[in-house]
Amino acid sequence: MPSPDESIHPVATGAAATTVALHQKPTEDGNELVFYSGWFCPFVARAWLALEEKGVPYQYKEVNPYKKEPEFLAISPKGLVPAIKYRGKHLHESLVICDFLEEAYPETPSLYPKDPYDRAQARLAIDVVSKSFLPAFFRLLQSQEAEKQAQALEEVYQGLRKYSERIQGPFYFGTQFTLADIVLAPWAARLHRVEKHRNFSASAVGPKFEQWVAAVKGRESVRKILSEEMYYEEIYGRNLCFFIP
Amino acid sequence: MPSPDESIHPVATGAAATTVALHQKPTEDGNELVFYSGWFCPFVARAWLALEEKGVPYQYKEVNPYKKEPEFLAISPKGLVPAIKYRGKHLHESLVICDFLEEAYPETPSLYPKDPYDRAQARLAIDVVSKSFLPAFFRLLQSQEAEKQAQALEEVYQGLRKYSERIQGPFYFGTQFTLADIVLAPWAARLHRVEKHRNFSASAVGPKFEQWVAAVKGRESVRKILSEEMYYEEIYGRNLCFFIP
Ligand SMILES: N[C@@H](CCC(=O)N[C@@H](CS)C(=O)NCC(=O)O)C(=O)O
Ligand SMILES: N[C@@H](CCC(=O)N[C@@H](CS)C(=O)NCC(=O)O)C(=O)O
Repeated sequence: MPSPDESIHPVATGAAATTVALHQKPTEDGNELVFYSGWFCPFVARAWLALEEKGVPYQYKEVNPYKKEPEFLAISPKGLVPAIKYRGKHLHESLVICDFLEEAYPETPSLYPKDPYDRAQARLAIDVVSKSFLPAFFRLLQSQEAEKQAQALEEVYQGLRKYSERIQGPFYFGTQFTLADIVLAPWAARLHRVEKHRNFSASAVGPKFEQWVAAVKGRESVRKILSEEMYYEEIYGRNLCFFIP
Repeated sequence: MPSPDESIHPVATGAAATTVALHQKPTEDGNELVFYSGWFCPFVARAWLALEEKGVPYQYKEVNPYKKEPEFLAISPKGLVPAIKYRGKHLHESLVICDFLEEAYPETPSLYPKDPYDRAQARLAIDVVSKSFLPAFFRLLQSQEAEKQAQALEEVYQGLRKYSERIQGPFYFGTQFTLADIVLAPWAARLHRVEKHRNFSASAVGPKFEQWVAAVKGRESVRKILSEEMYYEEIYGRNLCFFIP
C-alpha cells in the first residue's frame, strides 16, 4: 500500500485543471521551459503565478514530490516542487524561480516595482513572509493543544500585521501585482482552512490585510491555478507541505 | 555597569580603521548614504564589501546594536546592523541592502554574473549559506559538549561542500567577485576561530573550498574591512553575533 503522502490526488481539478490542459505541449518559442508542479503546493503556486502573470510559455508536468522518483531527483536535488527545466538546465526553490523568470523574460510584465527603494521593500516583505509568517503558520497547523494553537495564532497575526504595515492597497504596491503579493498569495487562497480549524480571522489582522486578501483572491492568475476546495482539505488534513528547507 | 554586549570595543581597528577614517564625511555625490555598521559583525561585512566593491560613496557610522539606542531603532526596526539611510529613507537586512546597492547604482561594477541562469545559481548559493551553513555554524560555536560539536561540525562541512559544488575558482563565478562570494566571505575571514577552538579544517571541505578561502582572504575589499584579530577573539569568545532573525 502506498504511504499516505504518495496517494495525493494525482491531478489538478477545477480551474487549475483547465490551465493545466492549456499547457501540455512543449513550448514553441525556442525557450524550452518545463514546469514541475504539484497542484496542491503553495510554493509551486508562487512560481505558477509568476508564469501566468508574465504570460511566459511553459509546459506543465504534474509530479508527486513525496514519491522521490529518480527522474525527478535528477531535476530537483531535494526532491521538492516547484522546479523548472529551462533549455536543458534545472532550477529549484520557488523564489529563485520567480527571480529567474523575471530576469530571463525581461520583455514580460515585471514582478517588481520600478524604484530601487521599493524593490528593496518588496524583498523585505518577502523576508517577513519567510521568517515571520511561514514558520508561525506551520506551527499553527501542526499544533494540537489549544494553548500552543493560541500562541501560534498570535505569532501568525504578528507576522501578518508586520507584512500589512506597508500594503498600499489593493495590492502591496497599489495597483501593481508584484512578488511582494505573490510570495504570500498562495496562503491567502488557503486561509479558509485555518479559519475553519484554527479560529483564524483576517479581520483580526486588520482592515488593510482583509482588503488585500479579497483583492488577491479576485486576481485572475490566482483563480486560474486553484483546484477544487475538497482536494486541499484532504492534503492539509494530513499536514503535508510543512517543509521549508 | 554596562552589560558585556554593550562593552564591545567601540571602534574598528587595523585596516578597517583606515577605511573608516576615509568615510567620515557626508557623501557629496547628491545621494545621501549613511552606513550604520558594527565593525565586528559578519552581516555588516556583506554590505560593507558591496559598498567597497562597487566604489559607492558612503558615510560610515559605528553603532553598538546591543545598546538599542532609540535613534538607532528608528533606523533599523529590529535594532540590528547593518542598516543604511539613503536619501532620508531607511533599509536593513544585509542581503536586501546588497541588492539595493546593486539596483540603485547600476553604473558601478555588478555584484551578479550577467547570465540569468548564473544569477539564479548565485541566489541558490546564497540560499545554501542562509539555510545550511549559517545555522550549523552558529550551532558549532554555541555547542559546549564534544558530541554536539562534532555533529555541528559535520553539518558545517555538509553545508560548505554543497556550496563548493559549483565554485568555478578562484571565486564562485571564476574571476568575477559576486554576491555568491560576498554572502560567505565574512565567515571565510573568521574561520581561524573555529580552526582554533572547534577543530575546523578547510581542507576537510575540499580543495576547491580551500582555494576559494585563500582567494577571498586575499581580496582587497575583504582586507580593507578587517579589524585586528584580537578584537574578534573577544567578541566571538562571548558568542555574540548569533542572531539570524
Ligand atoms: N523552499 C521550497 C519549499 C518547497 C516545498 O516544500 N515543496 C513541498 C510541497 S508543498 C514538497 O515538494 N515536498 C516534498 C517533500 O517534502 O518530500 C520552495 O520555496 O520552493
Ligand atoms: N539577518 C540580519 C542579521 C544581522 C545581525 O544579526 N546583526 C547583529 C550583529 S552581527 C546585531 O545587530 N545584533 C544585535 C542584537 O542581536 O541585538 C542581516 O542579515 O542583516
